[in-house]
Amino acid sequence: MINGHGDDAYHYEGITSDFSSNICAHTTHQHLMAHLAACPGLLDHYPEPEAWSLERLIAAREGIDPACVVTTSGATEAIYIIAACCAAQHFDRAVIPTPTFSEYADACHLSGIRVETSQLHHMPDADLRHGAVLWLCNPNNPTGTVYDQLLIDRLSAACDLVVLDQSYENYTAAHVMSARWACRYDNVIQLHSMTKAYGVPGLRLGYITANARLTEKLRRFLRPWSVSALAVEAGKYLLAHDDLICRPDLGEARRLRDALCGVPGITVEPTQTNFMLCRFERGSAASLKECLARRHHILIRDASNFQRLTLSHFRIAAQTPAENDALVAAVREETEAAYLPDA
Amino acid sequence: MINGHGDDAYHYEGITSDFSSNICAHTTHQHLMAHLAACPGLLDHYPEPEAWSLERLIAAREGIDPACVVTTSGATEAIYIIAACCAAQHFDRAVIPTPTFSEYADACHLSGIRVETSQLHHMPDADLRHGAVLWLCNPNNPTGTVYDQLLIDRLSAACDLVVLDQSYENYTAAHVMSARWACRYDNVIQLHSMTKAYGVPGLRLGYITANARLTEKLRRFLRPWSVSALAVEAGKYLLAHDDLICRPDLGEARRLRDALCGVPGITVEPTQTNFMLCRFERGSAASLKECLARRHHILIRDASNFQRLTLSHFRIAAQTPAENDALVAAVREETEAAYLPDA
Repeated sequence: MINGHGDDAYHYEGITSDFSSNICAHTTHQHLMAHLAACPGLLDHYPEPEAWSLERLIAAREGIDPACVVTTSGATEAIYIIAACCAAQHFDRAVIPTPTFSEYADACHLSGIRVETSQLHHMPDADLRHGAVLWLCNPNNPTGTVYDQLLIDRLSAACDLVVLDQSYENYTAAHVMSARWACRYDNVIQLHSMTKAYGVPGLRLGYITANARLTEKLRRFLRPWSVSALAVEAGKYLLAHDDLICRPDLGEARRLRDALCGVPGITVEPTQTNFMLCRFERGSAASLKECLARRHHILIRDASNFQRLTLSHFRIAAQTPAENDALVAAVREETEAAYLPDA
Repeated sequence: MINGHGDDAYHYEGITSDFSSNICAHTTHQHLMAHLAACPGLLDHYPEPEAWSLERLIAAREGIDPACVVTTSGATEAIYIIAACCAAQHFDRAVIPTPTFSEYADACHLSGIRVETSQLHHMPDADLRHGAVLWLCNPNNPTGTVYDQLLIDRLSAACDLVVLDQSYENYTAAHVMSARWACRYDNVIQLHSMTKAYGVPGLRLGYITANARLTEKLRRFLRPWSVSALAVEAGKYLLAHDDLICRPDLGEARRLRDALCGVPGITVEPTQTNFMLCRFERGSAASLKECLARRHHILIRDASNFQRLTLSHFRIAAQTPAENDALVAAVREETEAAYLPDA
């Protein structure tokens, strides 16, 4: 496991505003927890070895065959299963446009797959041929970029296998490929995150969708009971409650981005989601993170451990207008303080 | 994933007595579920990438250093992590005395490790040398056998690595090695199951204990957030509630075994736990299982998919005296019926 993930409020005392996780959730899940507590015997029996009953519900929702769905303990487990399966299928290299979610490379390394990183627009199609699995995060973490359908079509035609991690598919107004559409390809595997879709990162629940010939190979790499009985029941509850689907306020995210762009010493990249990649030009993201946490009780994501990023990169996800205003004020205060020593 | 696990009541309607899972649990966990429901924000944040806070509590309980503890999503995840780590450390073969829990062999196969099975007393020490990892389930599933300390000492001296799965360590009156003692070996990895210790198979929570030099290698193969926030909090609650530890009634298990031994056509192997391996000499375990489920609403474990067992083997775990009496009566009825066609 690599070190340095977001949402690490457990390292600090008294965090009141958490911008470090991309998950858009100003819902609490008291009703869901009350539902789980009222289910008799949920802890007393093993869950299904594979969560078939939940897979059928997900398939109905996505309009695909249940054979095309594989539930996992969060999208993270799916990443490791896919890497292990690719290694067994003699994929000897992975192509990963960076910066992106670090687990793809970690999972490939652990499975003995050689990793090549590059920026996507620097990558000729010829580089993708011959035993390569391409990992795309769409929308991409940490940049918020959405790849268009034509690009994905071109890439899937060029390479042997495309893994399309759509964990943030609800977090953008841009078009992303439906599970139903992706199942028509014989070399596209999609990842979905109920963690992100419903704002329940404490639960661990995700799923893979793909052509049944691909899911059949992946299923061999599942561990029995990897999705707990609590997660299965919670998944069923969430699928029956569309009102709990996270819909980030992208207008507010734009307002936050504009405000941060106005802070001297801060640059913010364009984004198509609620989270955005920023640079602190007067010091390290780590020092800014420490100041914001200790002095303002605000948590941001030091993004310096994403490959191809620098010590000055950090990532934030828009929160409520009041929290966003407080962040901008705090960042302004700290960047001004950071500027003083050089003055 | 292999097919055919126990506790598969989801395949039947109206099961009222479940002998198919070894887990001794006549407790329901309403208080635990109420506790989880009362924890604010449990679902709203990622758990720690690795459940360090829970590892510290487990270490204190076991009297060992937190560096010697690795929490996992059930002991099953631990098995797959250990196999993956062994493969990376160039262990090229696994030695697995059978019959035993099938996941060891499955995990080794998935990691590309060659599996050799044999009965332990047929295995000379010389067979264990040179790059072999030995997997021992102690007490053993499905036989209920407990290996003695002298044998484990001999085996650990003979082979490079011993994995000692002590998931059922609370389920026997025989001596089993403490985590504290096992940490003194430089080649023994112990598995522990909170699922079994507290009767919470719906939760998925287990842990590895070993010398810190071994756990350091294993940690590299953890997936972030594999233990959910619900499981972490539940684990802390359970560690604070010793009254919830499962203590099977081994006297009642003996009584059940004696009664079953009195049924013509049924043989039962000796056991040191609450579960026992049986044979149905007049037909297949699958047919007996179907009859018991459909006609008596009783679930047993068809054990024919354990390597080295036959189509006639089944496994049961003792339940309450009334349920055990009902099982014996039902088995007697079905074995008599099974005998008729041959008469």
